[in-house]
Amino acid sequence: MIGPTARPITLAVDAMGGDRAPQIVIEGMNRALDSLKNVRFLLFGRSDDVSPLVTSCRRLRALVEVRHAADVVASGERPSVALRSGRKSSMRQAIDAVAAGEADGVVSAGNTGALMAMAKFVFKTLPGVDRPAIAAVFPALCGRTVMLDLGANVNCGAENLVQFAVMGEVFARNVLGLKHPSVGLLNVGEEDLKGNDAVKKAAAILQQSTLDIRFHGFVEGNDIAMGTVDVVVTDGFSGNIALKTAEGTARLYSHHLKRALTSSPLARLGALFSGPALKKMRKRFDPRVYDGAMFLGLNGICVKSHGGTDAFGFSNAIRVAADLVADGVNEGIKQDFACLSTGPAPDPKVATG
Amino acid sequence: MIGPTARPITLAVDAMGGDRAPQIVIEGMNRALDSLKNVRFLLFGRSDDVSPLVTSCRRLRALVEVRHAADVVASGERPSVALRSGRKSSMRQAIDAVAAGEADGVVSAGNTGALMAMAKFVFKTLPGVDRPAIAAVFPALCGRTVMLDLGANVNCGAENLVQFAVMGEVFARNVLGLKHPSVGLLNVGEEDLKGNDAVKKAAAILQQSTLDIRFHGFVEGNDIAMGTVDVVVTDGFSGNIALKTAEGTARLYSHHLKRALTSSPLARLGALFSGPALKKMRKRFDPRVYDGAMFLGLNGICVKSHGGTDAFGFSNAIRVAADLVADGVNEGIKQDFACLSTGPAPDPKVATG
Repeated sequence: MIGPTARPITLAVDAMGGDRAPQIVIEGMNRALDSLKNVRFLLFGRSDDVSPLVTSCRRLRALVEVRHAADVVASGERPSVALRSGRKSSMRQAIDAVAAGEADGVVSAGNTGALMAMAKFVFKTLPGVDRPAIAAVFPALCGRTVMLDLGANVNCGAENLVQFAVMGEVFARNVLGLKHPSVGLLNVGEEDLKGNDAVKKAAAILQQSTLDIRFHGFVEGNDIAMGTVDVVVTDGFSGNIALKTAEGTARLYSHHLKRALTSSPLARLGALFSGPALKKMRKRFDPRVYDGAMFLGLNGICVKSHGGTDAFGFSNAIRVAADLVADGVNEGIKQDFACLSTGPAPDPKVATG
Repeated sequence: MIGPTARPITLAVDAMGGDRAPQIVIEGMNRALDSLKNVRFLLFGRSDDVSPLVTSCRRLRALVEVRHAADVVASGERPSVALRSGRKSSMRQAIDAVAAGEADGVVSAGNTGALMAMAKFVFKTLPGVDRPAIAAVFPALCGRTVMLDLGANVNCGAENLVQFAVMGEVFARNVLGLKHPSVGLLNVGEEDLKGNDAVKKAAAILQQSTLDIRFHGFVEGNDIAMGTVDVVVTDGFSGNIALKTAEGTARLYSHHLKRALTSSPLARLGALFSGPALKKMRKRFDPRVYDGAMFLGLNGICVKSHGGTDAFGFSNAIRVAADLVADGVNEGIKQDFACLSTGPAPDPKVATG
């Protein structure tokens, strides 16, 4: 986390990404300043739309430099199309600013696929990383759980999963401040014989690994919310489904709780008394608190805020980006991948078991 | 659902399956009689353990025939081992009774993998069905959602997913009583270009199908709880992860709600007033209400109760089995697969899109 003595950080922000851009982007930046002291922003977007909003906010004025970008990547745009024709977009210009060394990281609430395609094209992957992954932090019974990949790679081999495990572990150590985080592979059962070939092979590699990773073995879907391990590793297909299933279930529960507490005069009276406690609980489950999905494995910091986010959510995504910069996640990943490539190759006979 | 005028049904019950067998099995059978009028049971297990429990229950005595089975399939037993060496087990004998025409369906809370392996070996699949699937019903914002496969097949091709769609649709029509249920394929996005090859190909086949299936297209994880479609189709890997992620999230939410409502004297007072409304809500989310996973696609009715279930949960699994028998699910699946095999073959060029 960033304290007042940390070195100054510059973040490139895509003003035009997300359903309620640019308003909530600028409000979110302002809100982020409540807890971030040494941060300044390069803000990319249509200057006619963006500049007046910045100028109207006294605190932001001195810390934001608006850079005009004529184009906007549409939310439904195919990543390949955005990559080819979006060079003048606010998203791409923000990424380019990081590549040019003008900013330390980029934050956008825009089209996820386009952001990943552009960031991968411009930043490239870190040495040894085959594919970047999308990671995010979730509330759990015991602390918090990091999960990756959340949708960048629908088809993953064992080597990809192993790389995600390494990146997730570095993140949990450097950003969440865990001394020796545990890592689990998401599967349909805890027994060795369960699962598809990729998870079985990845488990064999992690068990044999010379890396100092505390590998727990397989975990199941319920372990995500239980916090059985600090890092849950999975392919982007299952990870995305797990993420959205959890969101849907929480929303369903929340809906019925609200309905129950307004279902009769007596229930409403009860809700009045339990109000402060319930508010605290709702805050714990507020998805905006966990806004800010990280693209791990790229040679540049890139954070995606939820497309439907508000200023509070966006401010949290900004904080995540600032943390990733300040805590040197990419340096940690580089170091661990250097060990991974110099370590002994896994025994293929064991690996296919 | 079974009314008092329905034809008599005989269910073969594995007395020894589940963590708290045989007590909760027999209590569950007794409880099921509250709503099932025309049912009798063949109960398989160690007669020394089982018979006294049956004899002590007046209502059951006349409706249960205890059949001695010397062996029990252990909860951790490999399916292949159980299949080879479990011929005298209560689970296998119960399945055999259905195959012999002595019972209309089997219910067990034992080892899922062993139950599936034995049921598949003894019953075989219905004509045209390549692989059976595990299906269950979940609470949703709008009504209920059927999901399959929940773990029988970790690797699925497009044809498997299409067959699951057909079986799930028949179930929703015949057992849930929906006139024209909608079917969705679980994916990481709703757009056509998203997802892995299997879901894309399955979607193309379902769109072209001559079957009278109301195919909605792709759905995401959050759509399961939202009830966007009546039937959610997925492979057993993602389905199992989604199922358990939803369970874990509901448990986490429930835990924090309980903690919030006991966190202060005022909150406790509030909980007292809201008590009846909250109880109703808890009942809605009670996983025991949804106990009873169905093995669809087999030439015999087989229902799996949760291993950690209690008498209430087991009684619901019994009701599910009775419904499957009474509502002629397998007849419906047979009819639809006959249409599937006589219909025009899907264009392979379209199917790979």
